[in-house]
Amino acid sequence: MVNTPNVFALVRGASEGRTRLNAFDNSLLNAGVGDTNLMRMSSILPPGANQKNIDDLDLPKGGLIPLAYATIDSTTPGRYISSAIAVGIPEDETEPGVIMEFEDHSKLDNVENIVRQMVVDAFDYRNRKLREIKSIGIEHRVETCGATFAAAVLWYE
Amino acid sequence: MVNTPNVFALVRGASEGRTRLNAFDNSLLNAGVGDTNLMRMSSILPPGANQKNIDDLDLPKGGLIPLAYATIDSTTPGRYISSAIAVGIPEDETEPGVIMEFEDHSKLDNVENIVRQMVVDAFDYRNRKLREIKSIGIEHRVETCGATFAAAVLWYE
Amino acid sequence: MVNTPNVFALVRGASEGRTRLNAFDNSLLNAGVGDTNLMRMSSILPPGANQKNIDDLDLPKGGLIPLAYATIDSTTPGRYISSAIAVGIPEDETEPGVIMEFEDHSKLDNVENIVRQMVVDAFDYRNRKLREIKSIGIEHRVETCGATFAAAVLWYE
Repeated sequence: MVNTPNVFALVRGASEGRTRLNAFDNSLLNAGVGDTNLMRMSSILPPGANQKNIDDLDLPKGGLIPLAYATIDSTTPGRYISSAIAVGIPEDETEPGVIMEFEDHSKLDNVENIVRQMVVDAFDYRNRKLREIKSIGIEHRVETCGATFAAAVLWYE
Repeated sequence: MVNTPNVFALVRGASEGRTRLNAFDNSLLNAGVGDTNLMRMSSILPPGANQKNIDDLDLPKGGLIPLAYATIDSTTPGRYISSAIAVGIPEDETEPGVIMEFEDHSKLDNVENIVRQMVVDAFDYRNRKLREIKSIGIEHRVETCGATFAAAVLWYE
Repeated sequence: MVNTPNVFALVRGASEGRTRLNAFDNSLLNAGVGDTNLMRMSSILPPGANQKNIDDLDLPKGGLIPLAYATIDSTTPGRYISSAIAVGIPEDETEPGVIMEFEDHSKLDNVENIVRQMVVDAFDYRNRKLREIKSIGIEHRVETCGATFAAAVLWYE
């Protein structure tokens, strides 16, 4: 089994690229996680995990990194695309938090409002007291082929 | 490398939610895996893995849990949605089994019949003798925004 | 945390099947990875990783295997579907390489040309010198329900 991570970092990136996957890849580089192997998961904050800056995480090049992320791409020039991620921190530090991700063809304020509300709903459904929501997001106006990316990276220290 | 799991549990859940991801999250809670980090994989039962009840697995909160799952959501009121998972156990316990997942806008009996047949086909293609199929599924009639979820969780003991 | 892999293998497969998931499963068997649990990631070659033949990797049955892959399926008789994967090896062996995947309703030459160009673009964006591109792909003409699969499997030795 894999050890449960104990730190997290919130990151975001946006970019153009010649293809959709290149635009995504460039967004990952822009976010500071572009030379790692991202393993997507759904999406809980381990109890007591501390927030770090992505530059303070020792992510091995090509290493296998668990994370939750929102992403969207588009090839429609002029269209806005946005990705946002929100982390709900519980009152009780022995309980897990919740990570929610959302993306849409929209400006960021709308997307980030929705993803924050999703965290509120997730805590309500769990009957768990919410101390604080941390969120991050990014919007991008498509030129020819663009992507946005927002993530909660989980790691170890 | 990650050790190969040696036990599995079949779980299912369904729920409404304010968004599609919240409905999914609520379904996970309903299934008993809502406070873990699910890492989706395709989809083999390790040789000799024993079936357990999900409550007997010691899943750490926020831990990284490998699983295979079916899921579907819908925002069309009155529509039926169903998810089912089937595990084929081989005659020869030193051989791996097969996990198949299927979901559709349909009642469960149809979906579960299909997923069981998928296991039969997977064993036929492997020329492997099938001892038994275990399956589980769930249907849900959408109110405003609903999701269903059925999974084979792999773990260690 | 999971150790960073240090070897890779390129594989491909194509097949018909009674359902889309069965066609995919058969393609995995055809590629030599059908009795493992595939954990999809995006998609970097760890620094200095050596290429191996898939038969020389000691993949445990039902084991959790990280990989990057392209896949596509279709139920339109007569249609061509293709999947290809390309790995860019950097001049500097201490730097990571890049893995790109692409699939389309197309013959393979088109798909493989695109995925190789995606690697060129990924190195350009990183300002990293590219020594060599290794690529592999497969095309399939659909009979009733077909799938193609091309992957870079990461592992350990």
